Amino acid sequence: MRDRVKMQRDLENLLGEFLKSSVNALAKIITLVENGGPETLEVMKAIYSKTGKGYIVGITGPPGAGKSTLTKKVAKDLCKRELTVGIIAVDPTSPFTGGAMLGDRLRMQDISNDQGVFIRSMATRGALGGVSKATVEVTKILDAFGKDFILVETVGVGQDEVEIAKIADTVVLIAIPGQGDEIQALKAGIMEIGHIFVVNKADRDGAERLFMDLQMMLDLSPRKDSWRPPLLKAVATTGEGVEKLTEVILYHKNNLEENGILTKKRKDRIRREVIGLIEQEIEGYVHKLIKYNYSFDEIIEQITNRQKDPYSFVREITAPLGEYFKLNRKEWKGGRNGF
Amino acid sequence: MRDRVKMQRDLENLLGEFLKSSVNALAKIITLVENGGPETLEVMKAIYSKTGKGYIVGITGPPGAGKSTLTKKVAKDLCKRELTVGIIAVDPTSPFTGGAMLGDRLRMQDISNDQGVFIRSMATRGALGGVSKATVEVTKILDAFGKDFILVETVGVGQDEVEIAKIADTVVLIAIPGQGDEIQALKAGIMEIGHIFVVNKADRDGAERLFMDLQMMLDLSPRKDSWRPPLLKAVATTGEGVEKLTEVILYHKNNLEENGILTKKRKDRIRREVIGLIEQEIEGYVHKLIKYNYSFDEIIEQITNRQKDPYSFVREITAPLGEYFKLNRKEWKGGRNGF
Repeated sequence: MRDRVKMQRDLENLLGEFLKSSVNALAKIITLVENGGPETLEVMKAIYSKTGKGYIVGITGPPGAGKSTLTKKVAKDLCKRELTVGIIAVDPTSPFTGGAMLGDRLRMQDISNDQGVFIRSMATRGALGGVSKATVEVTKILDAFGKDFILVETVGVGQDEVEIAKIADTVVLIAIPGQGDEIQALKAGIMEIGHIFVVNKADRDGAERLFMDLQMMLDLSPRKDSWRPPLLKAVATTGEGVEKLTEVILYHKNNLEENGILTKKRKDRIRREVIGLIEQEIEGYVHKLIKYNYSFDEIIEQITNRQKDPYSFVREITAPLGEYFKLNRKEWKGGRNGF
Repeated sequence: MRDRVKMQRDLENLLGEFLKSSVNALAKIITLVENGGPETLEVMKAIYSKTGKGYIVGITGPPGAGKSTLTKKVAKDLCKRELTVGIIAVDPTSPFTGGAMLGDRLRMQDISNDQGVFIRSMATRGALGGVSKATVEVTKILDAFGKDFILVETVGVGQDEVEIAKIADTVVLIAIPGQGDEIQALKAGIMEIGHIFVVNKADRDGAERLFMDLQMMLDLSPRKDSWRPPLLKAVATTGEGVEKLTEVILYHKNNLEENGILTKKRKDRIRREVIGLIEQEIEGYVHKLIKYNYSFDEIIEQITNRQKDPYSFVREITAPLGEYFKLNRKEWKGGRNGF
């Protein structure tokens, strides 16, 4: 009990330091949340009212595309424009060992002490998609800390990019020459989520062809929004094209703000997040239910032996949930539960 | 009403044909399930007791690794050994348009009429991970149809391979030379899920180095099981190394069976599937709840404006559910709901 009081007081102190812009407190709070400890909920509740100002840019592309270097340089450029920046690098992790790959973490170190840039490397921890729940929470923490821009760098082909599209305001897709036709073809599936396209390593063989291919794909891809994604060239290592990229990011931000799209996008995002949180809570209850229910193992045994089918079983055990929602619908609609 | 009766009768006829080994009925049933129609549940319930005999092999690796060719040749080899085979090729799809890439679909056609081999190309339809719920269902359908082997070919780096590890009995990981160091490094994160490693395009430059690198990585990777993954060379286009691969797959199968690991793996898989199905049901209820709740939009508005925080709100609306579960715990434990 005394321990809990102490923990509570420590957390309050930490949040106080955080609100006074202590980078040390920021790092500690991120670690708390990344570890998914019991303080997470309290932290998120406490900082929520401070969020909503930071602009989230997702930077994604295949492994070896030079994402870290480009992210780093864009961050430096934003700093020059007197904007504050946080970087989250999402590392591919083995879902089995939980050990993060250290490459990006190490490569990122050299700007972590730059004024205004805070860098955090995160493991994916086997979440579905490279962008975990913790990543979303850390964007919020950096936002509440007052970062103008939060750059989220994710590695991956396919799914990660879809996940990043859900949390970022601007998505930058990076392609590089020499990945073979099939990889480029695969990219076709994710053309719609990119707002800005960059051919990095533009000094290499095949860059011109890739540029033209992407140009054609962009011309052919149908879009739900009216934004025509600009296609840029860059050589991240020399810094070529970085300034242009930063400018285009700022232009896209401006465009979203002026058309009221940003407000709408963010509301939709909050909606999805709330639904996700509700599902997560209910799942928690069901997991508890299973845990307290000693015969679950027996049921699994019966299903394994084909004495029972899983579909009927699931209907059976979730049916009371349906009953509950139906019975309580009136109350839920206008009642004391905040609806 | 009469329509529903007719639909029901049609479905029963179709299932009857399916059980009489009609390939036509098999194809129709897969289409029904792939489209996620209302018949899915009934189909899955009806066939479930026939499942559990088919052996699932996941074949995965980066785009351009020659997975389709290798899968096709392994299938032919299995047929020669008088085993029946089904192939599922999971295509990368745009989660936005739902349009599948046709590449693999077309390339696979030329053996689809071979005796014993049934081939199905599937879109991923934006599911989390390339291996969708429908893919899992189709493996079960092919299993119930009596296929001895079900080969699931998935494209992807990272996440898809993790998904395939969840549904396959044997996972074959294919690597090819010339993908760059970083891609190989990324592979390190997924070493543990592979049971058999193949360097395809082994006649190309760099194959020997890749082979040695992988050998070293396999030596260094810790494993939870006692299986030491064999590393093979192949040239899928000429058929070199295919017979050896088939033999190693059969050897791994035998190994799992003899040690009782297969039974355990499958039970764990069923457990995960049941939990997944429960979560899915819950999602359904939450979506209904939100749909019928007129003030949900208002709450989202308040959260967007930072008047309310999402975390407190979610706790608030799910709290009564916890009460409900707690109150009924005794009944759920031993009672009428099958627990």
